[in-house]
Amino acid sequence: MTIHLHELVTEAGRPLSPFVWRIKYALAHKGLDFDTRPVGFTDIPKLCGGQHKTVPIIEDGATTVCDSWAIADYLDATYKQNPIFSSPAERAMVKFFEGWFFDAAFRNLFAVNVLDIHNHLRPTDKAYFRQTREKQVGTTLEAFTANREARLPDLRKNLKPMRVALANQPFLGGDKPNYADYIALGAFLWTSALCTLPVLEKDDMLNGWLQRGFDLYGGIGRGAPYPLAA
Amino acid sequence: MTIHLHELVTEAGRPLSPFVWRIKYALAHKGLDFDTRPVGFTDIPKLCGGQHKTVPIIEDGATTVCDSWAIADYLDATYKQNPIFSSPAERAMVKFFEGWFFDAAFRNLFAVNVLDIHNHLRPTDKAYFRQTREKQVGTTLEAFTANREARLPDLRKNLKPMRVALANQPFLGGDKPNYADYIALGAFLWTSALCTLPVLEKDDMLNGWLQRGFDLYGGIGRGAPYPLAA
Repeated sequence: MTIHLHELVTEAGRPLSPFVWRIKYALAHKGLDFDTRPVGFTDIPKLCGGQHKTVPIIEDGATTVCDSWAIADYLDATYKQNPIFSSPAERAMVKFFEGWFFDAAFRNLFAVNVLDIHNHLRPTDKAYFRQTREKQVGTTLEAFTANREARLPDLRKNLKPMRVALANQPFLGGDKPNYADYIALGAFLWTSALCTLPVLEKDDMLNGWLQRGFDLYGGIGRGAPYPLAA
Repeated sequence: MTIHLHELVTEAGRPLSPFVWRIKYALAHKGLDFDTRPVGFTDIPKLCGGQHKTVPIIEDGATTVCDSWAIADYLDATYKQNPIFSSPAERAMVKFFEGWFFDAAFRNLFAVNVLDIHNHLRPTDKAYFRQTREKQVGTTLEAFTANREARLPDLRKNLKPMRVALANQPFLGGDKPNYADYIALGAFLWTSALCTLPVLEKDDMLNGWLQRGFDLYGGIGRGAPYPLAA
């Protein structure tokens, strides 16, 4: 039976949410059949009886699950093949990775991306996005991103532990990618869907890992329009 | 058969090396019988035919293994019970943790501890330690540590991803400790064997995790003389 994945898209139809990307990778990792249902921010309250406020949301037969961690756990509990988490200890370490990545990279990527996100949304989503995010950052999106280049040195420096890990292995998960790879790849795919400012340097070894990650599962992450490195 | 673990000790006989601590925890984690053989820095070349330059070194019957990662892998390959690493993916994520911890915490702990390490060594080790470490830091140990308090704000701030992870679970490994816990506990036990400057604040939630870690395996980490928090 095909699982339906509701995913945020840009006006051009490009997948947008870093959290949905995790689940696209997780579904492909497990070899499960799925299709995607494109939605905009303002469509989310119309889905599944309005019970969820964010995507990803999956519908698997009569079951609806929201939240990327809840979905990953549901998929492992329901479908035994190709576990997303080999053990509770691996899951705990990926949680550590997520917490680290949020502060080290995700916050900076959000600050770099936020006006570009707005500019790439469907017209019906723009007002909602501007209003909620300007409240969050305390100023206009234009003012907040005016000096966004200044965030890049910190962002690049902060990624060092990923470079150290990837110096001796192709993926954060080792020889094979794991959910830590999917978390980080999702954030870069979000960026690459819309960010008009390349965030990495050309000679950053992370570019090789990104290409390997985008090539996974038949090229699941290929074709994003904006280059990540320049 | 009892495994012999060669471990660095202070003049007072307190275990010293953060890398040996990992293996003490790993041996206890697996439930293996072991004893410890105290050595000083200048004894290491006299062990096992002089083939190794650092501890930990284990002797398991006719087999000698040096280096904490090599020993952990040897133990898992040789003794199937209670795996240190549940899967290659968990091992890869712990490697990521180690790389992060080295930059975020270990470097700062070394810089805070280095003169205290010297002062706690056996007299025969002091000259060797001063000479090699002063070459490494490019000045006298006294000059290098003169303003060591200034490193504490960064050290404490850098530990945030551990606090995030431990907000919802007792150990970095989840419900049970894993090798990431042992890596970090080892660094704090090294500090607590000799550091005359408390490195953490009293209300740091990491103190609870440290006490849980020191209590493991019959209190393997209990009794270190210097308080970590003040």
